[in-house]
Amino acid sequence: MASLKVPASVPPPYEDAEQLHKAFEGDPLHDESILSFRYFFLLRLFVDSSDVLFDADRWGTNEGLIISILAHRNAAQRNLIRKVYAEAYGQDLLKDLDKELSSDFERAVLLWTLDPAERDAYLANEATKRFSSSNWVLMEIACSRSSHDLFKVRQAYHARYKKSLEEDVAYHTTGDFRKLLVPLVSAFRYEGEEVNTILAKSEAKILHEKISAKAYSDEEIIRILTTRSKAQVNATLNHYNNAFGNAINKNLKEEADNDFLKLLRATIKCLTYPEKYFEKLLRLSIKKLGTDERALTRVVTTRAEVDMERIKEEYHRRNSVTLDRDIAGDTSGDYERMLLALIGHGDA
Amino acid sequence: MASLKVPASVPPPYEDAEQLHKAFEGDPLHDESILSFRYFFLLRLFVDSSDVLFDADRWGTNEGLIISILAHRNAAQRNLIRKVYAEAYGQDLLKDLDKELSSDFERAVLLWTLDPAERDAYLANEATKRFSSSNWVLMEIACSRSSHDLFKVRQAYHARYKKSLEEDVAYHTTGDFRKLLVPLVSAFRYEGEEVNTILAKSEAKILHEKISAKAYSDEEIIRILTTRSKAQVNATLNHYNNAFGNAINKNLKEEADNDFLKLLRATIKCLTYPEKYFEKLLRLSIKKLGTDERALTRVVTTRAEVDMERIKEEYHRRNSVTLDRDIAGDTSGDYERMLLALIGHGDA
Repeated sequence: MASLKVPASVPPPYEDAEQLHKAFEGDPLHDESILSFRYFFLLRLFVDSSDVLFDADRWGTNEGLIISILAHRNAAQRNLIRKVYAEAYGQDLLKDLDKELSSDFERAVLLWTLDPAERDAYLANEATKRFSSSNWVLMEIACSRSSHDLFKVRQAYHARYKKSLEEDVAYHTTGDFRKLLVPLVSAFRYEGEEVNTILAKSEAKILHEKISAKAYSDEEIIRILTTRSKAQVNATLNHYNNAFGNAINKNLKEEADNDFLKLLRATIKCLTYPEKYFEKLLRLSIKKLGTDERALTRVVTTRAEVDMERIKEEYHRRNSVTLDRDIAGDTSGDYERMLLALIGHGDA
Repeated sequence: MASLKVPASVPPPYEDAEQLHKAFEGDPLHDESILSFRYFFLLRLFVDSSDVLFDADRWGTNEGLIISILAHRNAAQRNLIRKVYAEAYGQDLLKDLDKELSSDFERAVLLWTLDPAERDAYLANEATKRFSSSNWVLMEIACSRSSHDLFKVRQAYHARYKKSLEEDVAYHTTGDFRKLLVPLVSAFRYEGEEVNTILAKSEAKILHEKISAKAYSDEEIIRILTTRSKAQVNATLNHYNNAFGNAINKNLKEEADNDFLKLLRATIKCLTYPEKYFEKLLRLSIKKLGTDERALTRVVTTRAEVDMERIKEEYHRRNSVTLDRDIAGDTSGDYERMLLALIGHGDA
């Protein structure tokens, strides 16, 4: 269940677009030419800091307006606003947001405003260019989206980057990571609930044999996890647990510092218990020394419209404190307000 | 260019459906109950073989009617006929065709009548159940269809088999064949014409190094061939030829009896010169001792609506005889008539 709160009566998109445009215009830095920038500092020397022109509230008001609109519109509504905005002002709303906002707040607003498939394509592309920890982002997109949504990401990737997603993933990874990630992002899993029990038993046995032999990146493990439907993977892992007395992820914990093993465990969790996977990601990103804003922003913007209510429930159960409270304790300002709005805190 | 000939004025689908239904009804074996079968043989004892009821021409007429309709309708028109037929007679046209027809002619009519994506899903599924030579069918579907058409095949596979295509391919293959075929059938290649020349040069070098080391199934070779756009693969192979003095397929001919190497060469040909790939397939299927009807039927039914004119041109150039003539020389009866109609012989 989504945490996004959309008001019962939404203004027409041209009105939203107009409000957003006003939010930018009220800002003396809107015209970002060096001249006006200098003018701004000159002015600053002469006016009192309490002057309404540079009043902190007024700055806040602009950003508050942006949050009050965008954080309470669903994907179809945001797309319409972007379209109408471009027609009315001849500019891309995203580019204007990019000019007006900064740091964590900016990233949250931009990611959120993007269409989900475009956003995933953007995150995936960014991940192919970063270090190995970003393999998790690729796995997460591949495993937690529906088959059709993952395909839409691949289409958006073509449109935006003039390349295929799997092409970039294959090019930027090597070894075991490539062996796992390329079929994950290329998958178009069957989504029915049908389960083949005989197959589940025989493949549970294969998994157990390979794991016992510490052949963690064996092609049979990869095949089972990357091609079977989620229902079938789940049935196989249930048989694994029943037949061998341990959940598979327990048996995959032997080597503490093996990054591939960590990714394999995360893959299994993301395929079978996405809400637990996301809960843990949020927990680690908030609790670690210095919040991991990238992960926090990613989870909130990508799940707010999908299953954030389930994730919040899981978070509360696991941490004995609500996600709202932990986010409020760890973030501040407009960034905090944006995240809280997206996870459904307060009224639309 | 397609070889399919559709008449300038096509009858409405209900008329086609009615004609097809009549074609079946004119046939005394239509009601396939044992009773009528016996009745047929009893009748046979009493009537002169020249009697119109069992006149060879009359049988031919039924099949001729089927050919005259179905072999001259495009995919959208055939789909409409199937829909209208099912509504009017409460039966699946394909099931009735299956009852009425037999052997090579039956297979050609059934394959042709199927929607292209359904047909490919059917052929691919059949291929996963057969011996290794059918790996070619999987490769052919993966490499010669457009990215969107291949995705439609994967959707049709879900709908028909309640599984994913890559799941069956991975399950039914092993070793190097699996390493190549799974990414091939899972690919969603970028289809733009943009080429990265620097990349083409560096990847041509990688290919040459691996091939020189006889590491034919190296993961880098697989990555390049399975993830790059066709335009990019082509540019890379052109650089290979320029830089190393040989077309890549020449360098892949070292081991005559290596089935994987044969498949790799066919993959390269199918990606870069599909019309030559299909020409050779037709040539081998016709020229070999005993026609290979499976391959012949597959190529004709899958390419008639796509690029058969190009393939015929290539065939003529390579064999100094037209494809029409070779097909007429090697096949007979309704099967021959069906194939010739599909490759554009005679009027619509």
